[in-house]
Amino acid sequence: MLKVEHIGIAVKSLSASVPLFEKLLNTNCYKQELVESEQVQTAFFKSGDTKVELLEATGPDSAIAKFLEKKSEGMHHIAFEVADIYAEMERLKQEGFLLLQESPKKGADNKLICFLHPKSTNGVLIEICQEIK
Amino acid sequence: MLKVEHIGIAVKSLSASVPLFEKLLNTNCYKQELVESEQVQTAFFKSGDTKVELLEATGPDSAIAKFLEKKSEGMHHIAFEVADIYAEMERLKQEGFLLLQESPKKGADNKLICFLHPKSTNGVLIEICQEIK
Repeated sequence: MLKVEHIGIAVKSLSASVPLFEKLLNTNCYKQELVESEQVQTAFFKSGDTKVELLEATGPDSAIAKFLEKKSEGMHHIAFEVADIYAEMERLKQEGFLLLQESPKKGADNKLICFLHPKSTNGVLIEICQEIK
Repeated sequence: MLKVEHIGIAVKSLSASVPLFEKLLNTNCYKQELVESEQVQTAFFKSGDTKVELLEATGPDSAIAKFLEKKSEGMHHIAFEVADIYAEMERLKQEGFLLLQESPKKGADNKLICFLHPKSTNGVLIEICQEIK
């Protein structure tokens, strides 16, 4: 794992939360992106070498909609950048971690991504990601 | 805010979670530190320019013990490094954020720290911190 690529935060409404995080982080949101396959609209902020990603559900079947229903607004996942997502998925599987995908899927921000089940990672939803070249 | 300094994760037992995160992050825990005033034992991992901090309660009055009781193991807070914690506390107060301390307190890892109430930050417990010179 190379670094923390971003921290994902589930929010009810980007129109309320983007200005809030702009004030909090004292920096502008530099990108919004819709990920249709996941039914989420995302908003990104830079913080040093890492990003903060706000996530709003765009449909009731979105994982973010379900998260907000069960829990509430707050930290949703940590994403770690990896050099080779296929090798890292294999390594994690060998170590006994539970992967939520058999093969990487396309995420926001031009990335291949894979999630690990929180029950194998102390309740923390972990994403690993690799930039698509 | 300069960067994400660390991500804090509440765990029941460091003796179980340190080896788990060593496998997950593929790196060794490089430091454990007791913060007596907070009744927490901490364990640190480097991840790029950021750290992952595991937090175990050492007493029933610890904020981590209460967090585990109310919720469960998982992401607890995001800490942002700031250049001048006093100026940043003043800026955040002016912006309407709710600070949990009137003045900075001593945290783990040789830092002055201050927390923001999650109800003013979309349910995310935010820490700001500055290295003690």
